Amino acid sequence: MPDVVFSIDQSTPMAQQRVPGHNRWHPDVPPAATVKPGDVFRVECKEWTDGQIGNNDSANDVRDVDLSRCHMLSGPIAVEGAEPGDLLVIDILDLGPVPQTQGPNCGEGWGYSGIFAKVNGGGFLTDYFPDAYKAIWDFQGQQCTSRHVPGVRYTGITHPGLFGTAPSADLLDRWNRRERALIATDPDRVPPLALPPLVDGTLAGTASGDIADAIARDGARTVPARENGGNHDIKNFTRGSRIFYPVFVDDARFSGGDLHFSQGDGEINFCGAIEMGGYIDFHVDLIKGGMETYGIHNNPVFMPGRVAPLYSEFLTFIGVSVDHRDDTNLYMDATQAYRNACLNAIEYLKKWGYTGEQAYLILGTSPIEGRIGGVVDIPNACCSVFLPTEIFDFDIRPGGDGPVRADRGQVAVTS
Amino acid sequence: MPDVVFSIDQSTPMAQQRVPGHNRWHPDVPPAATVKPGDVFRVECKEWTDGQIGNNDSANDVRDVDLSRCHMLSGPIAVEGAEPGDLLVIDILDLGPVPQTQGPNCGEGWGYSGIFAKVNGGGFLTDYFPDAYKAIWDFQGQQCTSRHVPGVRYTGITHPGLFGTAPSADLLDRWNRRERALIATDPDRVPPLALPPLVDGTLAGTASGDIADAIARDGARTVPARENGGNHDIKNFTRGSRIFYPVFVDDARFSGGDLHFSQGDGEINFCGAIEMGGYIDFHVDLIKGGMETYGIHNNPVFMPGRVAPLYSEFLTFIGVSVDHRDDTNLYMDATQAYRNACLNAIEYLKKWGYTGEQAYLILGTSPIEGRIGGVVDIPNACCSVFLPTEIFDFDIRPGGDGPVRADRGQVAVTS
Amino acid sequence: MPDVVFSIDQSTPMAQQRVPGHNRWHPDVPPAATVKPGDVFRVECKEWTDGQIGNNDSANDVRDVDLSRCHMLSGPIAVEGAEPGDLLVIDILDLGPVPQTQGPNCGEGWGYSGIFAKVNGGGFLTDYFPDAYKAIWDFQGQQCTSRHVPGVRYTGITHPGLFGTAPSADLLDRWNRRERALIATDPDRVPPLALPPLVDGTLAGTASGDIADAIARDGARTVPARENGGNHDIKNFTRGSRIFYPVFVDDARFSGGDLHFSQGDGEINFCGAIEMGGYIDFHVDLIKGGMETYGIHNNPVFMPGRVAPLYSEFLTFIGVSVDHRDDTNLYMDATQAYRNACLNAIEYLKKWGYTGEQAYLILGTSPIEGRIGGVVDIPNACCSVFLPTEIFDFDIRPGGDGPVRADRGQVAVTS
Amino acid sequence: MPDVVFSIDQSTPMAQQRVPGHNRWHPDVPPAATVKPGDVFRVECKEWTDGQIGNNDSANDVRDVDLSRCHMLSGPIAVEGAEPGDLLVIDILDLGPVPQTQGPNCGEGWGYSGIFAKVNGGGFLTDYFPDAYKAIWDFQGQQCTSRHVPGVRYTGITHPGLFGTAPSADLLDRWNRRERALIATDPDRVPPLALPPLVDGTLAGTASGDIADAIARDGARTVPARENGGNHDIKNFTRGSRIFYPVFVDDARFSGGDLHFSQGDGEINFCGAIEMGGYIDFHVDLIKGGMETYGIHNNPVFMPGRVAPLYSEFLTFIGVSVDHRDDTNLYMDATQAYRNACLNAIEYLKKWGYTGEQAYLILGTSPIEGRIGGVVDIPNACCSVFLPTEIFDFDIRPGGDGPVRADRGQVAVTS
Repeated sequence: MPDVVFSIDQSTPMAQQRVPGHNRWHPDVPPAATVKPGDVFRVECKEWTDGQIGNNDSANDVRDVDLSRCHMLSGPIAVEGAEPGDLLVIDILDLGPVPQTQGPNCGEGWGYSGIFAKVNGGGFLTDYFPDAYKAIWDFQGQQCTSRHVPGVRYTGITHPGLFGTAPSADLLDRWNRRERALIATDPDRVPPLALPPLVDGTLAGTASGDIADAIARDGARTVPARENGGNHDIKNFTRGSRIFYPVFVDDARFSGGDLHFSQGDGEINFCGAIEMGGYIDFHVDLIKGGMETYGIHNNPVFMPGRVAPLYSEFLTFIGVSVDHRDDTNLYMDATQAYRNACLNAIEYLKKWGYTGEQAYLILGTSPIEGRIGGVVDIPNACCSVFLPTEIFDFDIRPGGDGPVRADRGQVAVTS
Repeated sequence: MPDVVFSIDQSTPMAQQRVPGHNRWHPDVPPAATVKPGDVFRVECKEWTDGQIGNNDSANDVRDVDLSRCHMLSGPIAVEGAEPGDLLVIDILDLGPVPQTQGPNCGEGWGYSGIFAKVNGGGFLTDYFPDAYKAIWDFQGQQCTSRHVPGVRYTGITHPGLFGTAPSADLLDRWNRRERALIATDPDRVPPLALPPLVDGTLAGTASGDIADAIARDGARTVPARENGGNHDIKNFTRGSRIFYPVFVDDARFSGGDLHFSQGDGEINFCGAIEMGGYIDFHVDLIKGGMETYGIHNNPVFMPGRVAPLYSEFLTFIGVSVDHRDDTNLYMDATQAYRNACLNAIEYLKKWGYTGEQAYLILGTSPIEGRIGGVVDIPNACCSVFLPTEIFDFDIRPGGDGPVRADRGQVAVTS
Repeated sequence: MPDVVFSIDQSTPMAQQRVPGHNRWHPDVPPAATVKPGDVFRVECKEWTDGQIGNNDSANDVRDVDLSRCHMLSGPIAVEGAEPGDLLVIDILDLGPVPQTQGPNCGEGWGYSGIFAKVNGGGFLTDYFPDAYKAIWDFQGQQCTSRHVPGVRYTGITHPGLFGTAPSADLLDRWNRRERALIATDPDRVPPLALPPLVDGTLAGTASGDIADAIARDGARTVPARENGGNHDIKNFTRGSRIFYPVFVDDARFSGGDLHFSQGDGEINFCGAIEMGGYIDFHVDLIKGGMETYGIHNNPVFMPGRVAPLYSEFLTFIGVSVDHRDDTNLYMDATQAYRNACLNAIEYLKKWGYTGEQAYLILGTSPIEGRIGGVVDIPNACCSVFLPTEIFDFDIRPGGDGPVRADRGQVAVTS
Repeated sequence: MPDVVFSIDQSTPMAQQRVPGHNRWHPDVPPAATVKPGDVFRVECKEWTDGQIGNNDSANDVRDVDLSRCHMLSGPIAVEGAEPGDLLVIDILDLGPVPQTQGPNCGEGWGYSGIFAKVNGGGFLTDYFPDAYKAIWDFQGQQCTSRHVPGVRYTGITHPGLFGTAPSADLLDRWNRRERALIATDPDRVPPLALPPLVDGTLAGTASGDIADAIARDGARTVPARENGGNHDIKNFTRGSRIFYPVFVDDARFSGGDLHFSQGDGEINFCGAIEMGGYIDFHVDLIKGGMETYGIHNNPVFMPGRVAPLYSEFLTFIGVSVDHRDDTNLYMDATQAYRNACLNAIEYLKKWGYTGEQAYLILGTSPIEGRIGGVVDIPNACCSVFLPTEIFDFDIRPGGDGPVRADRGQVAVTS
């Protein structure tokens, strides 16, 4: 087992850990640990809400979650010798839930996925599913099942939702400028267009005084992916992956968390992955001056690992960039096309007895593949969602005796 | 070899074929042939521009192409017993270029891909590549190479870009209404937001008189995908696939064409696939009343085949929904995120000596996978493009001796 | 389409072709054509029995087949510049049945597989299935079905059973010596231990006179694989494969045939593949002195292609080196272990209503994987056969409602 | 984490564990624990030699190993309700080395593989490698490397070598009879043809008195696979697999161990896997009367899991059943054919600077696939070994600059 350079007591909030992590991107969050190129080390992580969600049958905790605290990141890990312009080469050697434990904290043998209320975060289909729902998932080795979504069992493409390097002061400034400009186009929107820095709920690692104040005032929220990596929510950052991160500050200052047991492309119900606390083991290296050498500036580049579960039979749903509710045609909008592909899949799954919420959570958590089809055939972008038939314990394909509708229960709801 | 129910002389335009096809969607295009559920049959196809592009080293023909004639479709094939509300079950048994022939017509041992000029069709990156370019690809069995793009060899995921059933009069009317409404929001845009019906260039199959006039006046252009299928440009419609098409008119009236030897997800340079004339073999069946039974209304559903080439090592580029030219933040725009992922890949490939145009055509034609990453992390949608490293005859991965820049020539340009 | 350097009229025996091929390995069979390193070319092939088997419902032709004429090989193809000690680099670009034809000759839309009678060739399970049987398979694109074996549909791993270079006189002499020594240990065995040269039935290509006599007298039978390649019956020699053949004579003199539409590992019923006439397209190159450079002396080395069909769910049967009929323990006998694995699979398939002969033919023709398990755990070698569940149109897995026994007919029998 | 029903202190021999396991197959070994159908549980295991091998650079411990103690099995686990004739349905949920530990005992972050001396166990190529050698492998997540075999890194197909149900008294009697008959054909052979029961070194679980004596006197050695399962050494018994074991005694009495981090097909150097202590998690169920229902009598049947690492590029070596040392032709001997395929691969690897011992250990430990090619083409069986090129950190394929010979060190040798 590698040395643990960032450790977590899963029963305690991040702010009370011996060395706390942070929840804003800022160049001045002090390193929590230091490693050298060539090192192998372990980072332990809280689940992204810092323990606000319980293993129970009520979605009230999802409804009432305090998003200002999210995501709770482990780090920063300083990498000796890293300088702006380098590429940080990160190998994901292993990751998983809290090892060898069954318990009340998320990641201790279980995880959850939630549909967030439209008034508190929302999700990809929030216009169709405006309320809060939850499902609990039990882990058995690399597989999971849920008492809230019977009939499916997945082998998880376990991965971290969010890792990245610290932004430089200049890069942070650009983020704040461009995101505030976006918010200004519709400042009262629900859900909002973006989230500006927010003092409330800020955890600045071990910083104090003026530095902590600056981090709270200017630190970028961790919700989106940006130039430094961040919340990619790409399921293929799995074991065996190698990622090349741009370095923007001395020592790179690498942070992350938001571990997922499984997730479909798009993480469509926002908290759509199966969330968990756990650990992740890294090997680290540097390519000096690699950003210019390889032309890698705007985002990390990565090579996926070899151990994603092999699903080979899919039922594929297509969507185009039309809003079918009022027959409005959008222009080359892949987001809308993918939304329709997902809605088409949900409609299909409901024919077999699943509720819409269950179907939504299946798409969020199972290893679906979300593909860009055509993005040049005006006016309709075309996207598709590949649903592996092999995750179901019944034959989900069209044909034969038609859809076998059964009572398949319901996910956890609010009271 | 199955019976050929729609035959093509590749040296002759579609309008001069013995039984001509059509290039507009309309319920009244007369069937060119009739089949029964359970039948196996072959359909021959022209390449999508109807033979306007030659096997040469000039992109003038791409620059000057007449798009009003595209796409040239084979069909309609009437399916006995099909009624509105049914699902048409189509198995793609085989498809390929013109069999056993080497010759001057596209599909006779060769195909092409083009970057269309911004003033004539454009493409996904038309702001970055506004001019016309072309590459010719030679077929060797299931593999292809290009004298215009050295250093790569692909095994093609051969597929039809476009097949679909005829729209009902009502559905056609909805299409025309919603697309005209979109055009009206910016009628002078170049390239346009959508293409309305156009009398010029219409080929109405064997229709004549008033019916031909109506088809020319009201028939939907074949560019986008819609409820009836249409121009999906999904590379996974390959051999062995089974597709469930909604039926909107009696006898279904199934048409298509636009065969591709290979294509990447997104078909990003518009004519981004390797285009070819050729043949496609189908098995056909019906699920009576299947649209309601399975909840399949908005788009076809399909199950991909098993013989897509197995590429297992990828270099993956990520993009988020920011316009990096002026640091504008777009809201959850997967189209922009995918555009950035592609631009990032092009930047990388240029470090190895490819021109931007070559890199653009590699992404358009090779079996890249375009994935939806996160579409819920405000404000940045995140998409990724998986480039198979195994298509290159040199080691394209970061590391080692760094990028080996070589003179790799250039694609065909205009004069 | 590549140039055809060896052409076949499928309705005519090999001996009556314009340029006949041959059916013995000998250095002096005159080249039928010449190619150069870098060339792409097509070779047309007869099915291995030279047309003795018909598309009908009687196995009499299998029972009565004249094996002295088999295998009929196309070639030799001389490769300019090849010398003993070189490696001949062969790319299989494409192969398939007789193109674009439906007809009475094997390969014209159909193929066959046979269980040979113990008195005439036998097979892997000839003690259990001593009589002659046959199944006809119809091709639909890359898939096949059989009226004699309902309930299965395969995507074929199409490949040549047999290609190789000519032996030198010295190598041929060694073959004859060691195989005659083996025969001498039990000269009257049925089936025989090996087949010595046989004048009857010899076809010596275009040779005549003394040379033809020498070929008939000394030429090695084509049944087994040897140092020159030969009858490997390895299903993974499929499209996209690259093979490195040792060269033993000037110009390499490359010959082959015995095309298979599909085959399981082991080709267990001897004529266990789905046999067909057809074509194969090659690219050829040389590595001068490559045998010594790479240490490749005893057998060819190859790299399989990327387009084998993807089957991912298997039912795996195990066998160990015991003869369960009389509980005799053999020592580390992988042949016996694999025989038991196959027998165990047959026993299982019979529970679903297949006859033993049908089950035997499924194992021979479908893309089963035959694996060496343990070959060190004395005294029992352990082998396994991986049967893809996805080839069946019903659920073949244990569990649920148990094996659903149905009347599944029978293969063609003798009269 | 599931309940541990059989626990191990890795620093202590099996005989001294709180509840000891056993190392002979016998119906009367008392159950160490009891589970019910539907249960999920964990079994901890010692590595197969019970801790005789150290993490060091000498092969003396391999040379001197006491094989009479091997394999040390955890169990038996009684399954309530199981009766002779049932099928025991075992799901492998997870397995791995000793969790979260780095230490001196095998499985604590490391494993080993050994070439056993011909006079003490031998191996598949013992005539070519008669002495003892060893390599130590370090685990990083699912990957491993060795200081003794530089240049390779594998993702392990982690699996148990050996699990099985207890034989009935009658079945045990048949084993002893048939194996003694085999030994009698050449009683002085080195290595021996089989291993008869042996009182020395017997560990009979918690049995004592007459029962312990009977177990020592009659208990079958654990080396080979037999009807009850046993030492299959099939690498595909990995996470997610479901195995159907025949039941021969009441409560099934399921035992096993011999965990492997990685192994190639054949486990060719005998102790050819990367051996480790660790844990394995099971789900258990029963199919009452399943042996007759499904025709499963002679061996277990299994369905492999979905998470085997995906290697898609192979260099494949072929062998036929000839002894090339003296040009002796064996008859249809797949064991010999596979031996030659392995020897051919070793010859190739030596051209790149590996020693024969290193090459032998690469074949034993890496995820090679060992395939039955043809077993019907008299007189030569044909087998092949698929070596994944992607495990090497240099380009191992023929071509280009030829084999790059480097000094690649050597494995641990004896002093």
